[in-house]
Amino acid sequence: MILRLEIDTKQIRFSDIVSAIADEGGDLVAIDVIQTKQELSIRDLTINVADTLYTAKIVEKVKQLSGVSLVNVSDRTFLLHLGGKIETKLKVPIQNRDDLSRVYTPDVARVCMAIHEEQRKAYSLTIKRNTVAVISDGSAVLGLGNIGPYAAMPVMEGKAMLFKQLADVDAFPICLDTQDTEEIIRTIKSIAPAFGGINLEDISSPRCFEIEERLKQELDIPVFHDDQHGTAVVLYAGLISALKLVGKSIDSIKVVVCGIGAAGIACSKILLAAGVKELIGVDREGAIVSDRTYDNPMWNWYAENSNPNKVAGSLREVIAGADVFIGVSAAGLLKRQDVMSMAENPIVFAMANPNPEISPEEIEDIAAVVATGRSDYPNQINNVLCFPGMFRGALDCRAETINEEMKLAAAEAIASVISDDERNKLYIIPSVFNQKISKLIRDKVVEAAIRTGVARRIPREYR
Amino acid sequence: MILRLEIDTKQIRFSDIVSAIADEGGDLVAIDVIQTKQELSIRDLTINVADTLYTAKIVEKVKQLSGVSLVNVSDRTFLLHLGGKIETKLKVPIQNRDDLSRVYTPDVARVCMAIHEEQRKAYSLTIKRNTVAVISDGSAVLGLGNIGPYAAMPVMEGKAMLFKQLADVDAFPICLDTQDTEEIIRTIKSIAPAFGGINLEDISSPRCFEIEERLKQELDIPVFHDDQHGTAVVLYAGLISALKLVGKSIDSIKVVVCGIGAAGIACSKILLAAGVKELIGVDREGAIVSDRTYDNPMWNWYAENSNPNKVAGSLREVIAGADVFIGVSAAGLLKRQDVMSMAENPIVFAMANPNPEISPEEIEDIAAVVATGRSDYPNQINNVLCFPGMFRGALDCRAETINEEMKLAAAEAIASVISDDERNKLYIIPSVFNQKISKLIRDKVVEAAIRTGVARRIPREYR
Repeated sequence: MILRLEIDTKQIRFSDIVSAIADEGGDLVAIDVIQTKQELSIRDLTINVADTLYTAKIVEKVKQLSGVSLVNVSDRTFLLHLGGKIETKLKVPIQNRDDLSRVYTPDVARVCMAIHEEQRKAYSLTIKRNTVAVISDGSAVLGLGNIGPYAAMPVMEGKAMLFKQLADVDAFPICLDTQDTEEIIRTIKSIAPAFGGINLEDISSPRCFEIEERLKQELDIPVFHDDQHGTAVVLYAGLISALKLVGKSIDSIKVVVCGIGAAGIACSKILLAAGVKELIGVDREGAIVSDRTYDNPMWNWYAENSNPNKVAGSLREVIAGADVFIGVSAAGLLKRQDVMSMAENPIVFAMANPNPEISPEEIEDIAAVVATGRSDYPNQINNVLCFPGMFRGALDCRAETINEEMKLAAAEAIASVISDDERNKLYIIPSVFNQKISKLIRDKVVEAAIRTGVARRIPREYR
Repeated sequence: MILRLEIDTKQIRFSDIVSAIADEGGDLVAIDVIQTKQELSIRDLTINVADTLYTAKIVEKVKQLSGVSLVNVSDRTFLLHLGGKIETKLKVPIQNRDDLSRVYTPDVARVCMAIHEEQRKAYSLTIKRNTVAVISDGSAVLGLGNIGPYAAMPVMEGKAMLFKQLADVDAFPICLDTQDTEEIIRTIKSIAPAFGGINLEDISSPRCFEIEERLKQELDIPVFHDDQHGTAVVLYAGLISALKLVGKSIDSIKVVVCGIGAAGIACSKILLAAGVKELIGVDREGAIVSDRTYDNPMWNWYAENSNPNKVAGSLREVIAGADVFIGVSAAGLLKRQDVMSMAENPIVFAMANPNPEISPEEIEDIAAVVATGRSDYPNQINNVLCFPGMFRGALDCRAETINEEMKLAAAEAIASVISDDERNKLYIIPSVFNQKISKLIRDKVVEAAIRTGVARRIPREYR
């Protein structure tokens, strides 16, 4: 935290300010004198605090000091965001007229005409080869809800950073000033030529389904709604690992998915594709069964494709005897007694954000594995594990889509990072900083794309 | 130029290939052996040629050699374009979980909420502060015509490079897969939140007028169609300089503009704003006069706002007695005898692309100043002189628009680079590589924006 203070040196000694800050738990680590005029001194105080809770207390205390006026409070997070987190960079400098004439007029015209004659050359001669658009309408940002396109930008910029840092994919954030489904589809189709892929992000349900589905049909580049499929891939990676730990096989388990929104449906789809037979979805109205008709068309689809034994009832009722609980719903929905009613060695993925369906401490003695979406517990199910490598692979083979096989392959790649020796109940999934992951995913995704016929280019090593 | 050859070493000696290339004017400067199998050798030959004319001849000759098979021809321009010319870059690296939690979840949520509470904070906390979209629909690219969005990308990428290199503006190329006016307007409005300005490029007339006009009305960030206004600003800069050279004043000259398309209208507008009284526009149908009605609505506007003496007739007729000719039309339209009929010390801006309305050599003995759009003649009227500094200024003061005063100020800044001592008939306009220009333009543009009330932020040095 950095405080900019205007200090009347006649009224207060600097040491008194420092003590006041220390009293509230702040540790002064740097002072920058910005300006000094007679009795007035403007200084920036850099203060370390153990917890952001202290920040407000320190600010309050400083405001009460007479002779001190608080000009500005900034913290490291805000300072990091000043002017945005990404920039563009030239791959070759323009140093003289000769360079200019090659990268711009008149020579660039020959490159333009080469693409005009053969459109697929856009992949070799423009940024399309390595560039993904990270697109949101700001309607469902993190757990913050519908905060709009301007406020969504910091998340999309952060995502663009991760693409570059973890998989050398150039990604550009686009936040849309519309939340109309048709308008979003039209806009994304219009801007698609520059991009080799579209990563949809933080678009609310159920619009996200139609937007993704339509764009997949109407564009010839991969379209991937990360909130759905990123979560699903990483969840499945965790499940592969957890099942190995407890010695159960994917086709013999009973799985209950709690929260049948965008992420819940995507998690269910990948599990069905992976071979899960007994899958029951539960939402506010209880288990989704095929003898009922729902307002939400996705639920009707869901009812027909899951719950083969037509088990009805509340979460409490259907969780009994389940091997795996998958929560993408809300804090506190799962109780210790529910977990106690599950099959032997229960596996719990409690991924509600920011607080899980059940806190890991509550069931650490009875659950075989607990995973959450949080970084402060073991086994974090984090989308960041998936999307960089997924798009690296899709771009490298110029995939026309990202299909279910590529998602399964990505999950298997993530799970494969952890060896049998390393695997334990607190370590079923690798860290996002594991350097091997994006390359491993990339290779498996490329192989799956070639195998399923959606690759338009075979990378050299597979020829 | 680089040739990849598959050479059958039983059939031909390498030295014979080298001689054949030398015979056609090629200078072999590097050899890279790519692969060797028994009698087959694959090699990349880097060849310097004095002129691209030789390229085709060398390729033809090599193809005729027996025992040689031409795998691939690439040249430096194409090699420079491989994978595109720009990339994204992180402004701060993500090295550990602490960094990740600041630039992405969970801490980024605080930044999002700060913008949600006060939208203008997007300017300080996102890339909006420094980022411009370079947008084209590929309908009028360079002199190549309607080559579409994919083929237009290399130009837009080149433009993005120039923004960054010359004025540290982050620019991102967007090529639209639609040429429908309303669709373009809607798309650009939808993607606007991420950007601090919109540079429209290579959009055909007359759609470009409505697109720019409507976006200016409906967006609160600057929208600048560079083909119109960039040309106009640099032309006016050249004219300021040329008039000083011949000792004429702007309000006393007669100007004939040939070619009343997008650029011709923009040039005319800036000259009227600068104080030119007698301005006559000429197109295919002759001089545009207010007693006629035209199909093109812009021509009706033009007729009412120019040609006060209602002079009718062909270019040949109206050019007599003119002080300045401004051509944004087609090659060869201006004749030596036309220039001879102009007033004393005629000034000729023959800016048709790629070949000027008259070649400078034809009139070097009778014209006081000749300028063209070409880099291989003196006095190049090049948009690159204007747009980087113009947007640098507009972004720095968060201008809500780029108005006529800012354009005039930019032109005066460009003209001011050349001192009275330096100015001569072959040097009326600075080089695009002059390091001072973008800063000079930026300062004048900021001042004009503040003066005319369109600046939403007063940079520190002007407070």
